[in-house]
Amino acid sequence: MVLNAFAIIPSFVVSIIYKGSDMLALLYTMIIILIASLFFINIKPKNTRIYPREGFAIVAIGWLVVSLFGSLPFYLSGAIPSFIDCFFETVSGFTTTGSTILTNVEALPRGLLFWRSFTHWMGGMGVLVLTLAILPSAGAGALQIMNAETPGPSPGKIVPKVGQTAKILYGIYFAITVIQVIMLVLAGMPLFDSLIHTFGSVSTGGFSSKNASIAAYNSVLIETIVIFFMLMCGVNFSLYYQALRGRIRTVFNNSEFRFYISMVLISGLLITFNLYGSIYKTIAESLRHSFFQVASIITTTGYSSANFDKWPMFSKIILVILMFAGGCGGSTAGAIKQIRIIILLKIVKRELLRIIYPRAVYSVSIAGESIEEKTLMEVLAFFFLYFLIFIIAVLVVSIDGKSFATTITSVAATIGNIGPGLDAVGPIGSFADLSARSKVVLSLCMIIGRLEIYPILLMLVPQFWKKVNI
Amino acid sequence: MVLNAFAIIPSFVVSIIYKGSDMLALLYTMIIILIASLFFINIKPKNTRIYPREGFAIVAIGWLVVSLFGSLPFYLSGAIPSFIDCFFETVSGFTTTGSTILTNVEALPRGLLFWRSFTHWMGGMGVLVLTLAILPSAGAGALQIMNAETPGPSPGKIVPKVGQTAKILYGIYFAITVIQVIMLVLAGMPLFDSLIHTFGSVSTGGFSSKNASIAAYNSVLIETIVIFFMLMCGVNFSLYYQALRGRIRTVFNNSEFRFYISMVLISGLLITFNLYGSIYKTIAESLRHSFFQVASIITTTGYSSANFDKWPMFSKIILVILMFAGGCGGSTAGAIKQIRIIILLKIVKRELLRIIYPRAVYSVSIAGESIEEKTLMEVLAFFFLYFLIFIIAVLVVSIDGKSFATTITSVAATIGNIGPGLDAVGPIGSFADLSARSKVVLSLCMIIGRLEIYPILLMLVPQFWKKVNI
Repeated sequence: MVLNAFAIIPSFVVSIIYKGSDMLALLYTMIIILIASLFFINIKPKNTRIYPREGFAIVAIGWLVVSLFGSLPFYLSGAIPSFIDCFFETVSGFTTTGSTILTNVEALPRGLLFWRSFTHWMGGMGVLVLTLAILPSAGAGALQIMNAETPGPSPGKIVPKVGQTAKILYGIYFAITVIQVIMLVLAGMPLFDSLIHTFGSVSTGGFSSKNASIAAYNSVLIETIVIFFMLMCGVNFSLYYQALRGRIRTVFNNSEFRFYISMVLISGLLITFNLYGSIYKTIAESLRHSFFQVASIITTTGYSSANFDKWPMFSKIILVILMFAGGCGGSTAGAIKQIRIIILLKIVKRELLRIIYPRAVYSVSIAGESIEEKTLMEVLAFFFLYFLIFIIAVLVVSIDGKSFATTITSVAATIGNIGPGLDAVGPIGSFADLSARSKVVLSLCMIIGRLEIYPILLMLVPQFWKKVNI
Repeated sequence: MVLNAFAIIPSFVVSIIYKGSDMLALLYTMIIILIASLFFINIKPKNTRIYPREGFAIVAIGWLVVSLFGSLPFYLSGAIPSFIDCFFETVSGFTTTGSTILTNVEALPRGLLFWRSFTHWMGGMGVLVLTLAILPSAGAGALQIMNAETPGPSPGKIVPKVGQTAKILYGIYFAITVIQVIMLVLAGMPLFDSLIHTFGSVSTGGFSSKNASIAAYNSVLIETIVIFFMLMCGVNFSLYYQALRGRIRTVFNNSEFRFYISMVLISGLLITFNLYGSIYKTIAESLRHSFFQVASIITTTGYSSANFDKWPMFSKIILVILMFAGGCGGSTAGAIKQIRIIILLKIVKRELLRIIYPRAVYSVSIAGESIEEKTLMEVLAFFFLYFLIFIIAVLVVSIDGKSFATTITSVAATIGNIGPGLDAVGPIGSFADLSARSKVVLSLCMIIGRLEIYPILLMLVPQFWKKVNI
């Protein structure tokens, strides 16, 4: 929380530079958060040992509290009049979703625009540490598997200590950020815009300072840079650690990395083929917009270089499928994730072989290491749970009476932390017209999706609140 | 096949009675099938012992062959000019789906109308024997569970021998058919129509002789009878065997039966609440149409008493969810089925408890009997596989460029063996406008869904065709 207060400082500086109307709102928020922190800091824990369920509770409640306080600048400045809208926008920021209730982003003062995108950047950092450092050590088996392929003495974590892991991840994340900002500036984007779009790319968030998103610049160079960084941040970050240690081969032999790149190429080419002639006159333009949208959706970023809602149904369906697929485990991307899809496909293959050879015993393995049955069960249960929550949310949103495409994709885009969906919530639309009830449910979807479902769901189980002596 | 030829006789009789233009087409079909049968009958198997994979292959190929020959009357009579349309209609009949490519059903000669609905009735019989007698003894574990609750010495089958089981099932099925025909005639429906709609209800198929389906009669009494029989045939048929043996309590204690009835009641009331005031002026009318559609969709029948495509989105989303849920295992209903959903929910509960109490060991049980881990894995894999095939089919159908709702629900309605979907394929629409490619894919979806996925999918695995010595 104290860190959260300090996190506002850069936005405050931006606000002062541009003499924005949001200066006071940002200042008040800092003061409120610092006072609240002093209140909490006096609560000393009786026990410093953290069990899985405490770990999950801290993460879940933490994300909620940060979002509540983080929405204060929008509310206090009056830039977004409804508090639920402020909350939605901030949750969308911290969960690196990028869905917006703003119909005119460009009207927002620069300090608030900066703060909005900065929540992405902080959120992305939080997700990396959560999935690569905290959750594996808290015993969430389904996530441990993500690093099963990285060789070395401790396959579950990059380096033994959580603190040390976090430092390395921050370093890599920060380095990528700096490089992208420099490249965007060199490509001719103003510094402020470069910062905003870098925050949105490296966190795979998707908030832009333009109503038309990346399409506003109409620059192939800028789009190419953004594609590269989005795809880069959809890769398991522990691979970058391997690459830095000179193990380039490990990266290219990684089965999740290869599956992810294949999925990008296949989807991109199918959409190119579908767009050429029907939407764009040249192959070059079809390739450009196809791959931008594929990279943006599979990495769950949500930037757009074209209004894909106007594309043929075949292209739209591919994008909707990618909304469920998502990037690699251990990246800043959301949704189901590539590693889980690989495991699910391998399980199905095993089930078929089991029927043909009933007496043989098969195990599912990744990179030669066989995966525990318990972990397979967790991955399968995760898939069902993802759809269960999806269905419940769709049911609530459907009360609003929007179109079938709007109802379905508004949930798919939030639970998968993508940003835009189709129709009314498409790339040039917004979530503004939905009811307050839907906005709250979709905010919850963003948090549930971001935290890999279990931490939030556990709080609904009565046993979770019972005291146990282990 | 010989049986198939004889199966045409009743339709031929109907055709003679009404002096239809379809008389010769039905006669020729009988002759063609008989000649083809003589050809096949000379092929003697070298080995009479049937292994699971042979069993699966026989079932899968059998369904295809029967559908090919069964489509001859439509084609030879010229009533449906395109052969792909004839094939689609016949597959839809034998798989008890009820999706149609006919835009004007009433123009069809009576003999063909009878044949069309009779394929439903035979298909329903085939499904019962398949899921309750053949598949369990062929070692398809996921299906064995359906009967796990029926007590007695052989939980996997109703009675030990396959042939005897089949006879009992046929008896129950035939009895239900006779009762419904009598009741519909007493309710004022003409005999011919009563037969057609009974075939469509007991097989949970959904072919009607009217363009407006059951709505054409506008009779509360007829609708109530149809609701009752649809719901009845969505229940595990082995429960009727238990009931006949006086074990009424077993039926009402059956957890799948209770779950199924609760789902009908909850969905029906939610839709009633949604329709009252917005579509219908009285509660009575809202209740009537809500429960008719819920019963029709959850049992995967597909009859309609109202054009639910015009209902509010909330009601439509509930119906789409029911399209995936389906009826009970061991019934003539299709889709994922209630028992699998119960097991999936129990697995999720266990996963949550595992995180809270990492050292405890939990098993998933139905009616006090714990289920093998291998079976749980099969149920989970089935769920993923169902969605995988759903997605692939949606992708192919999307090439046609129909609306989002049409694309999604045309696949949901065929893989789940329901019949109508929403929008262009809604209750007053038809599948006529889809491309030949989509019709073939959707026909495959009907067969894949009907045969519980594995038999068809196995044929795509190279190892399936290899010779093995077990």
